[in-house]
Amino acid sequence: MLGPGKARLLEAIRDTGSISAAGRAMEMSYKRAWMLVEEMNAAFQDPLVDSTRGGPGGGGARVTEAGLRVLALYRSVQATAALAASEDIAALKAMLRGPTGGI
Amino acid sequence: MLGPGKARLLEAIRDTGSISAAGRAMEMSYKRAWMLVEEMNAAFQDPLVDSTRGGPGGGGARVTEAGLRVLALYRSVQATAALAASEDIAALKAMLRGPTGGI
Repeated sequence: MLGPGKARLLEAIRDTGSISAAGRAMEMSYKRAWMLVEEMNAAFQDPLVDSTRGGPGGGGARVTEAGLRVLALYRSVQATAALAASEDIAALKAMLRGPTGGI
Repeated sequence: MLGPGKARLLEAIRDTGSISAAGRAMEMSYKRAWMLVEEMNAAFQDPLVDSTRGGPGGGGARVTEAGLRVLALYRSVQATAALAASEDIAALKAMLRGPTGGI
């Protein structure tokens, strides 16, 4: 199970090397960031994040090979989907009020 | 602005002819269903739902031509996107624990 929030959290852990720093960067509580990581690790056959729990200030984390692959696939799904559906998306946006819109 | 919940609500209003009945069918409060309808009507140039406010027990509602078009485009985006990205989606699902998975 993966959605936009978890994908961004994975990227933030990859970039910061820390679950707590990633959570802070996303304005998410330490507890929530950990819960999302545990959900992801439980949902996939291989853990997506390797970590040593060290309290709000400590501990390190890294995104595993499986995690990097999941991230790449997820971003690829998004890009492929957006490209394939771009005509319908443009038609929907054209129906929105305002100059920019957003579906 | 449209997501899975609003799209389902639109379909339920189309099918029931009533915002309150549609909300009930989705186990959503009357107040929340109305709020979502008002958000949708505000987001698009033409209202997606025509309604007469009649309290929890009354009033009628119908999805407008614009609403039906938005629904059709939204469902088309989903189907096109799922088809285009099906290979990556299958690769992601294969990494999930358990027999069925779900991204």
